[in-house]
Amino acid sequence: MKDSIHVGWEGGMSFSTSIHGHKLVVDAKEEFGGNDKGPRPKALMMLALAGCTGMDVISILKKMRIDPEGFNVHIDSELTDEHPKQYTKMHLIYEFKGKNLDTEKLKKAIELSQDKYCGVSASLKKAMEITYEIKIIE
Amino acid sequence: MKDSIHVGWEGGMSFSTSIHGHKLVVDAKEEFGGNDKGPRPKALMMLALAGCTGMDVISILKKMRIDPEGFNVHIDSELTDEHPKQYTKMHLIYEFKGKNLDTEKLKKAIELSQDKYCGVSASLKKAMEITYEIKIIE
Repeated sequence: MKDSIHVGWEGGMSFSTSIHGHKLVVDAKEEFGGNDKGPRPKALMMLALAGCTGMDVISILKKMRIDPEGFNVHIDSELTDEHPKQYTKMHLIYEFKGKNLDTEKLKKAIELSQDKYCGVSASLKKAMEITYEIKIIE
Repeated sequence: MKDSIHVGWEGGMSFSTSIHGHKLVVDAKEEFGGNDKGPRPKALMMLALAGCTGMDVISILKKMRIDPEGFNVHIDSELTDEHPKQYTKMHLIYEFKGKNLDTEKLKKAIELSQDKYCGVSASLKKAMEITYEIKIIE
């Protein structure tokens, strides 16, 4: 499979692109010569991971006929202080809301994503430590 | 250094977040149960890389007093066909537009980004092959 992206400089520190028809802008903060027209690019690695595994989990739970009232994915990351400043760890918190949710099935869905389906996790695991926990709010 | 992200499920396959005050949504295509409210999350890894190295290069060129008329970063990627579907290669094309641009200085700026400053590249290099080329359009 192949994929591609075309990102254009828009002056200052701003870069824009269209991914699957959706316009996205990244930019730096004012103190680094930017105009804050969009997020800093590095943080998109966390959104890529949360979105990828979140979609897997929701898709697997649907097949298990489990329909949580709410579902959030939080990530707490650690980065190096020295250049190149990079993530050394991402810890995911899968937070489900709902009554009588089957904890074992929730765990199973997450394991399937982390071990079999999530391509972002598969990549990032080679570059940093990826850990996770489950929280259930009744 | 620490960083974090909070991503909320919005029904279907849609997840939204706010990064540095900017709202972002990822979603799946209709054929995978989504509503295409945003891009697929995996492709954000390419934007993270293009934005990170693009900002480095523009910032270094500014210090070198080089001001290109235009600058684009294209990435062509390859992915596995099997689950977990992941990038195996990203090839960057740094495309500069302008007259009498100093090719050696452009190369130097890219090398500094790839070897020293870009934290996204530093991470992704551990997970896949990262290559690049320069194109100059007069």
